[in-house]
Amino acid sequence: MTPAKGNLVVAQGGGPTAVVNASLYGVVREAAARLDASAGIWGARSGILGVLNRRWMDLRRPDPENWEAIAASPGAALGSCRKMLTDEEAVEAVAVLKAAEVRHFVYIGGNDSMDPALKISQAAAASHYELHVAGAPKTIDNDLPLTDHCPGFGSAARYIAQAAIDLCADVRALPTPVSILEVMGRNAGWLTAATVLARRDPDDGPHLIYVPEAPVSAGRFLRDVERVHARQGWVVVAVSEGLRDENGRSLGGPRDQAAVDGFGHAMPGGVAAAMARLVTAELGLRARSEKPGLCGRACALMASPVDGREARESGQFAAAWAIQGHSGFMASIHRAASGPYAVEYRPVPLAGVANLERRLPPEYVNAERNGVEESYRDYVEPLAGGPLLRYPRLDTGWE
Amino acid sequence: MTPAKGNLVVAQGGGPTAVVNASLYGVVREAAARLDASAGIWGARSGILGVLNRRWMDLRRPDPENWEAIAASPGAALGSCRKMLTDEEAVEAVAVLKAAEVRHFVYIGGNDSMDPALKISQAAAASHYELHVAGAPKTIDNDLPLTDHCPGFGSAARYIAQAAIDLCADVRALPTPVSILEVMGRNAGWLTAATVLARRDPDDGPHLIYVPEAPVSAGRFLRDVERVHARQGWVVVAVSEGLRDENGRSLGGPRDQAAVDGFGHAMPGGVAAAMARLVTAELGLRARSEKPGLCGRACALMASPVDGREARESGQFAAAWAIQGHSGFMASIHRAASGPYAVEYRPVPLAGVANLERRLPPEYVNAERNGVEESYRDYVEPLAGGPLLRYPRLDTGWE
Repeated sequence: MTPAKGNLVVAQGGGPTAVVNASLYGVVREAAARLDASAGIWGARSGILGVLNRRWMDLRRPDPENWEAIAASPGAALGSCRKMLTDEEAVEAVAVLKAAEVRHFVYIGGNDSMDPALKISQAAAASHYELHVAGAPKTIDNDLPLTDHCPGFGSAARYIAQAAIDLCADVRALPTPVSILEVMGRNAGWLTAATVLARRDPDDGPHLIYVPEAPVSAGRFLRDVERVHARQGWVVVAVSEGLRDENGRSLGGPRDQAAVDGFGHAMPGGVAAAMARLVTAELGLRARSEKPGLCGRACALMASPVDGREARESGQFAAAWAIQGHSGFMASIHRAASGPYAVEYRPVPLAGVANLERRLPPEYVNAERNGVEESYRDYVEPLAGGPLLRYPRLDTGWE
Repeated sequence: MTPAKGNLVVAQGGGPTAVVNASLYGVVREAAARLDASAGIWGARSGILGVLNRRWMDLRRPDPENWEAIAASPGAALGSCRKMLTDEEAVEAVAVLKAAEVRHFVYIGGNDSMDPALKISQAAAASHYELHVAGAPKTIDNDLPLTDHCPGFGSAARYIAQAAIDLCADVRALPTPVSILEVMGRNAGWLTAATVLARRDPDDGPHLIYVPEAPVSAGRFLRDVERVHARQGWVVVAVSEGLRDENGRSLGGPRDQAAVDGFGHAMPGGVAAAMARLVTAELGLRARSEKPGLCGRACALMASPVDGREARESGQFAAAWAIQGHSGFMASIHRAASGPYAVEYRPVPLAGVANLERRLPPEYVNAERNGVEESYRDYVEPLAGGPLLRYPRLDTGWE
């Protein structure tokens, strides 16, 4: 193929994942293969802010060995931001890119980041500047529309499933019988639901899984805990940080201060701690909560090999398709087959992704609203992509 | 050697660790080598409760291959408890053991568990029943006196140091500039201090490390955060769950509800969430908190090989010394050499360990009370015993 002209800029937006730098490397490698040797391959520092501030880095510089190590590192190697663009800023960004003779722009990010990408593609079109704008998906929340799943999710799913196995191994032997594992996800329960992978035997935990898509009242939650405790004497619960009751209230109740900051604003997280307090207060059971939080999306040790490969490939696809002259799209992952698992990459319009959320479909949630269906295990298992450590038991055969 | 007579009982008390079953296996293996083939090697279910309730399991049954897998599993394979014994219950326990012709009793546990062990050894002596009572140390808190360190600690230290590295990789690229990592430890800061292993380069985190042995006021904490933030734009803090100010109050202030349950009782944990709220309220900086909690002591993937070996060997030492006729002692670890690291096992009196805490010595805490000295790194590094995953950076060379 004839090497393409024009410089390329890549940036990373939103919260990092364990594999977001694999996407970055995919973009850079594909660009190096397709662009003219004189074309720049630049990284913008701190996402779209780096475009507005003209902060570039030459990404042709690191050698492939360094790149392999960077691709396997958590965190956003270029830095990130949560900046949304006004229409004026989008015009300004296009002016900056035009002045730098940039013809290809790839933004690696989630639904919030796809909005600036969309606005820039529209502003470029309006000013008749030929700029090829691509999105590369990235989010542990797995909440982007028009894609089977999102790079970053599989690794976070693997981490939290293993954490649930480990936690259950600890709690089943303990005098503190209730432990509540808080999982990231304000509006979407995909990641929390992935803890179903920890379950294999009938008494395995998590015994109760609550997602934001299926609100539960405090009373219902307490009855669930009571029932599981009566059956087997210990309870592990997985809950999305964004869980609310049917009226949109925190399960900690109106007087719960745990999820409110000094200004009275809702703070992320805290729901598991509030639920543990509730269990102790209402059921008289010792309860505690765990919240690995960011540690779960930054754990390279638990990165899913499948997820890492797809992150890189979706970055490559985004770069390739942009360099071929397309704009205003995101690279999406299509599950082409389930047995064995296989995917294809396809372009989908940024307008169908930007600012939109894809929540967990109701059919994956059980009728009792306290667990997920086995069909969800089939969905998530290949994405977690690595064997989980399971432990033998010595707790049978007591005289 | 002549095989010894009498049955042996082993039990596990207190919170589990990633290597507590390696200690169990050490006891069982040593007992099998030293006891007469007709002697029973029994596990008591749920710690000392299993003795009182006469719940035994035949530990000669699992084959060595199963034992290797069990030894590498987190959680207490026999079940655990936090039961303290009254004098009457200690007499009762001795009667149960005598009736079952048990001559050797090994209790794997921390300072709370060494108290029942001591009481049982005293009750046996008072009733002139020859019972050999041994303690095998176990605690992620590392707070047992008369030992250089405790099995379980090294693995928890390795886990939390890696979690700190991962968290820093995530936060350094983020628009949320402050993250506070809560580490287990109500009274002793050994484990929190181990996050120093995450630091290598000058700007590596955790930038601030707070331990219960060095109380800090909210004002001092906020000034520390402000200073680090001004210098480099992001801050990672490691804090012991038991941190208090100079007046023994939570840093969340008197109106902080986060650490109080429905009865108004203090709940474990919550200090990091309270400190994050404080940072947002007083400094106007976005802040969040992470709390891996029990996940950190149950993560077999991050178990330290050194710790696992010492857990097994201290169990072996406890069993061997008991079977040789000694009683009322705990197996302690003596650091025989530092370069290269080597240990010896020695008996220390249970009376010097039971219910006593060894806190972090002041010389390991820096003068500013917000970090630990390099001498502590030398202490803890060999215990964590495995390489930590470090990540390259791409954040230099910006134009």
